[in-house]
Amino acid sequence: MMLAEATLARLREHMADSPFDALVLGVPENVGYATGYRSVAGDIFSSHRMAAVVTADDVAVAAPAADAGAISEHPVRLEAYGRFFFEGPDGSHPAVSAADQHPDFGSALRAACSSVSGIVGVDGAVLPGSDAASALPDPDRVADAGAWMARVRSVKLPGEVELLGAAAHLAEKGIEAAIDGAAPGATERDLARIVASTMTNGGGMPRFVVVTSGERSALSDSRATERMLRPGDLVRLDVGCTVDGYWSDVGRTAVVGAPDRLQNDRYAAILAGEEAQLEVFRAGVTGGHLFDVAVAAVEAGGIKPYRRHHCGHGIGSSVYEPPSVAPAGADHVLAAGMVLCLETPYYEIGWGGMMVEDTLVVTTDGYDLLTHIDRGMRVIPA
Amino acid sequence: MMLAEATLARLREHMADSPFDALVLGVPENVGYATGYRSVAGDIFSSHRMAAVVTADDVAVAAPAADAGAISEHPVRLEAYGRFFFEGPDGSHPAVSAADQHPDFGSALRAACSSVSGIVGVDGAVLPGSDAASALPDPDRVADAGAWMARVRSVKLPGEVELLGAAAHLAEKGIEAAIDGAAPGATERDLARIVASTMTNGGGMPRFVVVTSGERSALSDSRATERMLRPGDLVRLDVGCTVDGYWSDVGRTAVVGAPDRLQNDRYAAILAGEEAQLEVFRAGVTGGHLFDVAVAAVEAGGIKPYRRHHCGHGIGSSVYEPPSVAPAGADHVLAAGMVLCLETPYYEIGWGGMMVEDTLVVTTDGYDLLTHIDRGMRVIPA
Repeated sequence: MMLAEATLARLREHMADSPFDALVLGVPENVGYATGYRSVAGDIFSSHRMAAVVTADDVAVAAPAADAGAISEHPVRLEAYGRFFFEGPDGSHPAVSAADQHPDFGSALRAACSSVSGIVGVDGAVLPGSDAASALPDPDRVADAGAWMARVRSVKLPGEVELLGAAAHLAEKGIEAAIDGAAPGATERDLARIVASTMTNGGGMPRFVVVTSGERSALSDSRATERMLRPGDLVRLDVGCTVDGYWSDVGRTAVVGAPDRLQNDRYAAILAGEEAQLEVFRAGVTGGHLFDVAVAAVEAGGIKPYRRHHCGHGIGSSVYEPPSVAPAGADHVLAAGMVLCLETPYYEIGWGGMMVEDTLVVTTDGYDLLTHIDRGMRVIPA
Repeated sequence: MMLAEATLARLREHMADSPFDALVLGVPENVGYATGYRSVAGDIFSSHRMAAVVTADDVAVAAPAADAGAISEHPVRLEAYGRFFFEGPDGSHPAVSAADQHPDFGSALRAACSSVSGIVGVDGAVLPGSDAASALPDPDRVADAGAWMARVRSVKLPGEVELLGAAAHLAEKGIEAAIDGAAPGATERDLARIVASTMTNGGGMPRFVVVTSGERSALSDSRATERMLRPGDLVRLDVGCTVDGYWSDVGRTAVVGAPDRLQNDRYAAILAGEEAQLEVFRAGVTGGHLFDVAVAAVEAGGIKPYRRHHCGHGIGSSVYEPPSVAPAGADHVLAAGMVLCLETPYYEIGWGGMMVEDTLVVTTDGYDLLTHIDRGMRVIPA
């Protein structure tokens, strides 16, 4: 079975046990879950609007006419808006008849909702108040399904785990290659290029390649620059790519030459934080508990107070998704099949930053790691 | 002078001749133009909110606290919202004091607007109606500056042309490498991987890599699949990357083995369309005229009617920007320093698709091409 069929089937199983008779989904990752369709244009135009309407026996998509060709490969009913011309002898082909079918997104969505009845669950991208509101039924029949969709998506199917594993593997392979290729005089950009090329060579799409060094390693999400590596530098790598729309997010830290005492001690503290999480990680544990365990271990290691807003997050077709390993995740209970990133970064302006971040699948009695490279502080020969 | 200083200076020159005493800009590309800051998180989280407030003598940025480290490298006043911890001995450092500075984007924006007086120009991302509205002055002092900003950005500075040229070069190099590496039995994904790796090896970030073959070449923006190339196939490549935030968008068509008569004739028609545009391309011409010229030439070549919504577009720190080479661009007058993509694609469901797309800088008496590879139909040996 294709992954898209499996995710749609999973979605309908959950719908059967939910208050929702229909779903109207505008968040691109939710559209992808319901249909398998991920828009190329949606990746590059912030104004791109699309929605999937799911009932027990119908899937309709409201999308720009320019998407009609690509959508025609998916088993969905298309309601297109705007102008884009596909020619063809067969006027009944959904792409050939897409141009000017509807004048705007709201009209297309109204047509896509034609078979909808009962209670309609909608996500944040189509919540009343937006231009889609007029396409929806009366407000008393509309309910927020955003958090519900996130919960459905949080437990991954085997095909999803496979893609997340492939993406994680390319990220860690990129980190290994960059550290192997690093030397004093190499620039942050040189290392970032190695990471990104490792990802593309393996069929991944680089999404963020944060390689920062020296004092810049403290800056969290920053672009790689022409700064050259020098002995004593911390080098922090925090990178991710997508494989067929599924993300990775992996982090490691290196030092140029032998680490000094403070670098060693602090890295030992943050590594102890992640390892403490691994010790208790299993189905049934909450994100809030994992957070507390991480903070306590980092503080016991000597970084005190260790102030973080989170120490991990779910990952899937979006890079951050529930469950949250944070105080806000106190009621996020881990379930078998969820995939999470665990991380314990530390950023000190004027000194530097370090991190370690891994990806793992929740199992009944523990976890399966999707990242396999050495978690220790790496040394780049000076 | 750094590019960011040059774009800010250019923006202030235009402000001096405008009705605007201040600008409040929330579109990421506009923030980048005013500050040089492009958020890593903004690239990957659709919920990311940020705005730059520009007056004659101040630039302030309202942004998430997580961006504070990276923003601290830019000469702007930061008003941060939300929770993210940077440690450091110097509590006056903007990143160290960023956590919980403001509870939400609106509050941060209100503080960033503290020095604003007179008429305030805002772009679409902060237009009244959004959660930013309460931070803005009275509605009668607020004016839409979205189209004005697009016009300011449309004439590129030399540093911008350089980045656009680098991005275009990596895209065309990727296309060349993919065609060189193609053979019957290779998959669309194999070719897409070559394109993306060529981009990353050269320091670019792949953004879209559309490689479609056979009947799939008609599908416009579609993902590359495991479909294998066969003799007689059309192979359509439409690819782009960014270099320091500046985009490319280049297209070419190949055929596996000798093209047949229809493939040859139709390609000759679309190529004649782009070449007719090149013949009249210079400062003073309108986008609408370029569109008409392209359509007439393609139709004279035998594809009639040739129905398109556009035959080109401006390109810069966004992939589509004014001027528009379309009926809607009737009043978009080309000016020296603008950078455009010209394209004449043709999509026929059941047969295939073909395109040619190039990038060029407007000059007083013509153009400077940023793409240099052969525009003819390419042949992949069968």
